[in-house]
Amino acid sequence: MFRKKLEETISLDKGGDAIITIDQTLLPGEEKIIKLRTQEQIRNAIYKLKVRGAPAIGVCAAYGIYLGAKEIETDDFDKFYAEFKEKKDYLAGARPTAVNLFWALDQMEKTVQANKDKPVKEIKEELLKKADAIKEDDIRTCRMIGENALMLLDDGDSVLTHCNAGRLATIKYGTALAGIYLAKEQGYDIRVFADETRPLLQGSRLTAYELNAEGIDVTVICDNMASIVMKKGLVDIVFTGADRIAANGDSANKIGTSGVAILAKYYGIPFYICAPLSTIDLNCESGSDIVIEERPGFEVTEKWYEEPMAPHGVKVLNPAFDVTDNENISGIITEYGIARPPYRESIAALFEKQKEDKERNGI
Amino acid sequence: MFRKKLEETISLDKGGDAIITIDQTLLPGEEKIIKLRTQEQIRNAIYKLKVRGAPAIGVCAAYGIYLGAKEIETDDFDKFYAEFKEKKDYLAGARPTAVNLFWALDQMEKTVQANKDKPVKEIKEELLKKADAIKEDDIRTCRMIGENALMLLDDGDSVLTHCNAGRLATIKYGTALAGIYLAKEQGYDIRVFADETRPLLQGSRLTAYELNAEGIDVTVICDNMASIVMKKGLVDIVFTGADRIAANGDSANKIGTSGVAILAKYYGIPFYICAPLSTIDLNCESGSDIVIEERPGFEVTEKWYEEPMAPHGVKVLNPAFDVTDNENISGIITEYGIARPPYRESIAALFEKQKEDKERNGI
Repeated sequence: MFRKKLEETISLDKGGDAIITIDQTLLPGEEKIIKLRTQEQIRNAIYKLKVRGAPAIGVCAAYGIYLGAKEIETDDFDKFYAEFKEKKDYLAGARPTAVNLFWALDQMEKTVQANKDKPVKEIKEELLKKADAIKEDDIRTCRMIGENALMLLDDGDSVLTHCNAGRLATIKYGTALAGIYLAKEQGYDIRVFADETRPLLQGSRLTAYELNAEGIDVTVICDNMASIVMKKGLVDIVFTGADRIAANGDSANKIGTSGVAILAKYYGIPFYICAPLSTIDLNCESGSDIVIEERPGFEVTEKWYEEPMAPHGVKVLNPAFDVTDNENISGIITEYGIARPPYRESIAALFEKQKEDKERNGI
Repeated sequence: MFRKKLEETISLDKGGDAIITIDQTLLPGEEKIIKLRTQEQIRNAIYKLKVRGAPAIGVCAAYGIYLGAKEIETDDFDKFYAEFKEKKDYLAGARPTAVNLFWALDQMEKTVQANKDKPVKEIKEELLKKADAIKEDDIRTCRMIGENALMLLDDGDSVLTHCNAGRLATIKYGTALAGIYLAKEQGYDIRVFADETRPLLQGSRLTAYELNAEGIDVTVICDNMASIVMKKGLVDIVFTGADRIAANGDSANKIGTSGVAILAKYYGIPFYICAPLSTIDLNCESGSDIVIEERPGFEVTEKWYEEPMAPHGVKVLNPAFDVTDNENISGIITEYGIARPPYRESIAALFEKQKEDKERNGI
């Protein structure tokens, strides 16, 4: 069993010259804390999935480009900015489809532009502030999702989750697991069932690891055991994350999520998606607009194994995600509250709330 | 890709002094045909799961005790019978919970008793006939299940199956796969989706192997992908086997089957259990009377893997079976026809048909 080694999944060390994180490729076999100092190390950590999960990647990139900018030895803005953009492109190449990576790097570039009349030294200070702000914003957003999820939990409840939408994918609380961590803070006794989540086993490798490290009662099950566990009355509520949510509430998440939602509905168990409002794409009308990534078959038949576990050359289907229809979702828990059916209206209301909030805070 | 190496999973070689089978523990990596001559080899093959599947184990034990009896060098019945019983006990110890193993050995012992007034040489011949009959009966039963299943299939259909209830578990056709093999004989173009069936992977290891070997189009999916495959309209019908069926139609089968049935119902896809009438236990009122075997957690977190895939010591639940409620079963395909809801009546009618059939044939 492990004990929590890091307060935050991604942070800057005290000296301010390295990113501290845990190498997620070695989990759960080994808990190795790593320091990323050079641009190569930072890019490599994202590329090799040592750092994974959209919010964690974003924060890593923000601190990463700050560390890169800090090294630029010039007082001339144009030279500084040219070198900054080179470093930015270098880091952006770590994962070509990671939206949060580009988003965070763009935020950092905007900070440079907004402060271009200041001395380079001050621009570097502004970049550190911005990276800190991106990190703090993730922590705050996840905590707010957790507070909204907590309202649905009672002491003694049992939660089923699929994949890893936890602390390791974010900075501190996760999305699907945020309510569980906050329940733990309240002293609630919560039991978690973690679907192992084939083929990449994010549930047994990562969710089981991080809950275990926090002293939360977690039981690993194969994905196909969710039905019997629900039937036995062992599950009070289901929380999962989401990769992309359509305007009508249809939610794309790790492969298998749609099946869990259908089982939950059959057994009369509430099923909630937990995600920040930024996951909701109002330009996406419904789930049928979401393209599902197909991944190589070897992940199903060979990866992890001592020897191949299916006939050589057999056909394999390996979709990475599926879409859970809105009719099977009890609610979508965001930092601005819980959207409930009908989703077009409730989601629009949450965006309205966000807008008012930003106006109130003058953002 | 493999080609079929054996016409029958278990058979006696031409010389009549060895059982020929395939070592299922090496599948799908290696197709090794083995000859079992001694009692040690036969017991060991069952014990080590080289031979698996209730019907296949029964036939192996029947030929096994025949081979043992053949070696007994005496003309004295009492001496013969005493040694026969010793050998029978030895083989019966191979798997303490395999009902078909005991059943087949008992059938063989009854054959000895029924022929006790004949010379030992003739008793040995009767034993061979009985073993052949047990084998032929399995082939016939599976073929009849297949014929009934075939009526539900059209050329071009796509079938989803879970676990392995195929040729490897029986002698020739299997139960859940019998209809698919008969469709192939008819020249139908059938596509099969094989759930990999965690944690022991009977689907990817065995079902994919045997269908592949017969040239049937099979695609392996993780268990949690059944939902998206059904949603995409890729599945016309689901066939699975059963380990035990209650009088009301509730069916215990490999873990995950109940979830597949619920998904099939949600997507409007017919879900059928395929099993011989001997699987239906009229003394078992409903599924709640069926005790589910719990197996060790290491099968989920460590078996097959190069390194453990969950935190050391994490809690694991590993039920080997689950019960599919009769309300989620479109029909139960047996050798005497298809039982449909309400099951108490339709199952009773099939037993009546069996009784009439036996009376007609003077059994």
